[in-house]
Amino acid sequence: MEVGKLLEEKVSRRGLIKGMGKLVVGATGIAVVSGFGTKILGNAEAAKKMSSELPWPYKKFSSKDIKRAAEIAHANWFKGFCTFATLSGIVEMLKEKVGEPYKSLPLEAFIFAHGGTAGWGGTCGTLIGSGIAASLATGHKTGEQIANEVVDFYSETALPIYVPDHPKAELKAKSTSHSPVCHISVGKWMKAEGIAEGKGPEGVGFLSAQQMDRCARLSADVATRTIELLNDWADAKFKTAHTSPVMANKIPSQNNCTDCHGDKIPSPGPFGTGMDILTGKH
Amino acid sequence: MEVGKLLEEKVSRRGLIKGMGKLVVGATGIAVVSGFGTKILGNAEAAKKMSSELPWPYKKFSSKDIKRAAEIAHANWFKGFCTFATLSGIVEMLKEKVGEPYKSLPLEAFIFAHGGTAGWGGTCGTLIGSGIAASLATGHKTGEQIANEVVDFYSETALPIYVPDHPKAELKAKSTSHSPVCHISVGKWMKAEGIAEGKGPEGVGFLSAQQMDRCARLSADVATRTIELLNDWADAKFKTAHTSPVMANKIPSQNNCTDCHGDKIPSPGPFGTGMDILTGKH
Repeated sequence: MEVGKLLEEKVSRRGLIKGMGKLVVGATGIAVVSGFGTKILGNAEAAKKMSSELPWPYKKFSSKDIKRAAEIAHANWFKGFCTFATLSGIVEMLKEKVGEPYKSLPLEAFIFAHGGTAGWGGTCGTLIGSGIAASLATGHKTGEQIANEVVDFYSETALPIYVPDHPKAELKAKSTSHSPVCHISVGKWMKAEGIAEGKGPEGVGFLSAQQMDRCARLSADVATRTIELLNDWADAKFKTAHTSPVMANKIPSQNNCTDCHGDKIPSPGPFGTGMDILTGKH
Repeated sequence: MEVGKLLEEKVSRRGLIKGMGKLVVGATGIAVVSGFGTKILGNAEAAKKMSSELPWPYKKFSSKDIKRAAEIAHANWFKGFCTFATLSGIVEMLKEKVGEPYKSLPLEAFIFAHGGTAGWGGTCGTLIGSGIAASLATGHKTGEQIANEVVDFYSETALPIYVPDHPKAELKAKSTSHSPVCHISVGKWMKAEGIAEGKGPEGVGFLSAQQMDRCARLSADVATRTIELLNDWADAKFKTAHTSPVMANKIPSQNNCTDCHGDKIPSPGPFGTGMDILTGKH
């Protein structure tokens, strides 16, 4: 595949020094930032400038760091919704642990991606925040691999797991979305919680205290999973466990075909005729 | 709504100097960057540092600039797919026209969002690139309003419109997705082009020369529409024309309900019972 080859070459050209550290090309020149080097230089010295080159320096999160990142993500949902919540949960900690270039990242530039992009119910915004953080810290190739694993976690895990010390609402239900799509994920959870039909205390399912706290907790869950994988990567233990659906299904897709297609799932082979359902020929 | 109020207050506190220019708070201090000021200071002087505060300076694109942005977007699809294509089409021009902080933006951090996020078929990656560019140049509130208008354009327009000087394939079809979701948008277009069932010259619909050039052209279309709205904003002419579905439908959603729900669309009122289709109770 031409495109894949191009990307592959691009990554190779960057010449990452594997197993040793990460090459950071910034406005101030080139610096090899290894775990060792970062320690000697100190956080503030490691990378003073915002850099258009990836990856940026990463320092492993302790259990305590992860707990704080989750707390920030949960709290920040109420300031800027899901993408901002997940991204800032990770990046606020990296500002403390690493400093620049994370301090210069304009976190508000990504708020728009909430609610599946400006409220259009597409990809859950937490996954956009997660993918940005993972790509900044590891580069675009590993960042996308981590994003793929996080989407799989999001789709196949009963969420939310995180229980805040100071919840905004008591929640009963967890649900598995089988999809990264906000509309499906939120809808299934509200059904499970019993507030899909306006039964929440505020008389409405969406924007009830429960739904908002669910999405805030889920932001913490996605931040936590992202950090776990970043820590694995820092230990050279990260492995891709799942094939992206675009390769597995030969079209950008999810694995919850029946949710939308009913039993009219595209037949085997390249695309079969399953798209018929979208054009009314069924 | 508490969250909306919080965001509203946040935007007010920023105190944008309307009609005059944009307030840029960077590492070097505070500078008022008006069209006039930018001219005097010169591009390189206007904003030397990457800044975590938005908006970043914006300069209107001429027709020639827009054409070049579209060309870059189309060409860059083949380097990093849709999000990278749309975002870099706009930002590469802003690097030339404005300089920093755009030069320091790590464009590769957003590649992962292609194919509806790591190939999971959610929100079309072009819309993520568009929303980031719009938010950088106008701040998160207007950025999201522009993102919403661009998603509406994407969903309700027969695309692709853009015809490159150097196409990678000849295309016959345009299609209207009625959705920002990659899987639906790509699927409908391949059906319209007649390559949904492996009829492309490469014997496969997805990753055929046609499908790739379609997505590259669409990246140019989304970049172009984003720039048109940014130019309107710079002229104080930008108006929100559409309500985001999250407010209109009271859940993050699209307006193509029947594509997935068939005729079992949620009944009126807060969420009705339409989620039944997702839980198999229909």
